[in-house]
Amino acid sequence: MPLVECVPNFSEGRRLEVVDALVAAVASAPVHLLDVSSDPDHNRSVITFAGEPDAVIEAAYHAVRAAAERIDLRAHRGEHPRMGAADVVPLVPLRGISLAECAALAHRLGQRIADQLQLPVYYYEAAALRPERASLADVRRGGYEGLVEQITIDPARAPDAGPASVGSAGAVIVGARNPLLAFNVYLDTDDVDIARAIAQTIRASSGGLPFVRALGLLVGGQAQVSINVIDYRETGLFEIMEAVRAEARRHGVGVARSELVGLVPQAALFNTALAYLQLPPETRRQRLEGRLGDVTGDYRDIGFE
Amino acid sequence: MPLVECVPNFSEGRRLEVVDALVAAVASAPVHLLDVSSDPDHNRSVITFAGEPDAVIEAAYHAVRAAAERIDLRAHRGEHPRMGAADVVPLVPLRGISLAECAALAHRLGQRIADQLQLPVYYYEAAALRPERASLADVRRGGYEGLVEQITIDPARAPDAGPASVGSAGAVIVGARNPLLAFNVYLDTDDVDIARAIAQTIRASSGGLPFVRALGLLVGGQAQVSINVIDYRETGLFEIMEAVRAEARRHGVGVARSELVGLVPQAALFNTALAYLQLPPETRRQRLEGRLGDVTGDYRDIGFE
Repeated sequence: MPLVECVPNFSEGRRLEVVDALVAAVASAPVHLLDVSSDPDHNRSVITFAGEPDAVIEAAYHAVRAAAERIDLRAHRGEHPRMGAADVVPLVPLRGISLAECAALAHRLGQRIADQLQLPVYYYEAAALRPERASLADVRRGGYEGLVEQITIDPARAPDAGPASVGSAGAVIVGARNPLLAFNVYLDTDDVDIARAIAQTIRASSGGLPFVRALGLLVGGQAQVSINVIDYRETGLFEIMEAVRAEARRHGVGVARSELVGLVPQAALFNTALAYLQLPPETRRQRLEGRLGDVTGDYRDIGFE
Repeated sequence: MPLVECVPNFSEGRRLEVVDALVAAVASAPVHLLDVSSDPDHNRSVITFAGEPDAVIEAAYHAVRAAAERIDLRAHRGEHPRMGAADVVPLVPLRGISLAECAALAHRLGQRIADQLQLPVYYYEAAALRPERASLADVRRGGYEGLVEQITIDPARAPDAGPASVGSAGAVIVGARNPLLAFNVYLDTDDVDIARAIAQTIRASSGGLPFVRALGLLVGGQAQVSINVIDYRETGLFEIMEAVRAEARRHGVGVARSELVGLVPQAALFNTALAYLQLPPETRRQRLEGRLGDVTGDYRDIGFE
């Protein structure tokens, strides 16, 4: 039974009754709701759910419709780049399904959004139909405001599905990707320029760490390096944190705390522990719960009580 | 259905046919064999298995008997302190059983070893009958050679069960404890004095980190700080590694690599990652596998493929 995860990002993190309506829309299909995470500073929410492909498509479609009805991008303010009420809808292969199959699902979902909701749809990452749309940042460049100006006049901004016109709900970016980590590091300073300088040094696009995207933001009066890890198997959180700390030191500041947003494949945390402790990769096979699970079928945690 | 883990340590890490015989003895009862780890330098093996209480007692008893028949302490050489062929037999509560209930099981096992194998038995940690025997290091002080000299003349060395006389199989130390981590840190030096100095600084018994035991050893020509973590929930691997690295730096050396011996509750690794990354404790509830497991019943890893 294939298991797909869907992690839609919505441009609403303050009006909790709207977030509730989005969650209710997801729950109208037989999927497993895994997480709801709202950020008032970014004015953005991430809902995580998983299930069989058809149910996931159904839940995602209803959530996009609920967002388009309730969120007006013309009035939306927040730190995070965004282009739509339902801004990004990624499908992630968890078990028994490939990334390519998730890309095909993304196309089914996008076509339904385009046909039934009359919203412009862009496909990104593994679902991209044009190479220049593989990167989410490239698709979203200029945000909602830029899209409003350009969509009718610039053929390069023509949507992959749906009308080439933008209403209050903006556009929907639908895609397929492997698990992504959203990792925010708060510095012990309110100097956002330092966060921006660190982000610039570590991100792949300016020659930093591969598979790392990063922005410097001011969040709640604190400088934040906001990081997306595209492939934590290639560039781990240990490597990223070492780089952030070294750069912070160069600027005379330190790391105050950090946070992961949404759900995280536990391997990303194991790998961090192994790297920090200089343990060999085989150590992951020494986990008591893994070994117990292999012989008893019960993989639950032992040690947190 | 209560689940108990048993992690007997045997004084044989070189003759693999003996280790095979010990494993076969364990497997003669209906338990789950989880791990076998032999160390030729320490000349010591650790077998990990788990099961229901009666089966675990049965398996442990047969393994102790097989060790007593095959291992002669009079000819045994190795870096690690030891007092018996089956040197230490700890019972660990995993699920649905308390530490006190495991202590009662330890007493049942010890009595059977004393009665049927005529070996001297000492109870330690949660199973200790005298406060001065709570610590394994105290029970084992002087090793096999010391015990041979003292057991017949020093009333303080009288066993808790079995005869006050020592043969080629030595004594068996039986106990109940919570999960313990065996963590070895290799330094990039062959100067064992540095390892000893670091061990002395970090261990609880000399005023270092609580719940930490440590020895400096020379293993395969490399200085090793050999660490036992009695309660990783109280003193985590992060804190220990930070202390080892700081002390190593003071001595002008570094950490080359490290290893965990046997099976490890995965919380010990999660906690390390959270501490290193400065993530809040709630992050452990953001693990995808945990959340998925709670809704689907399937807690298996997603992200290692």
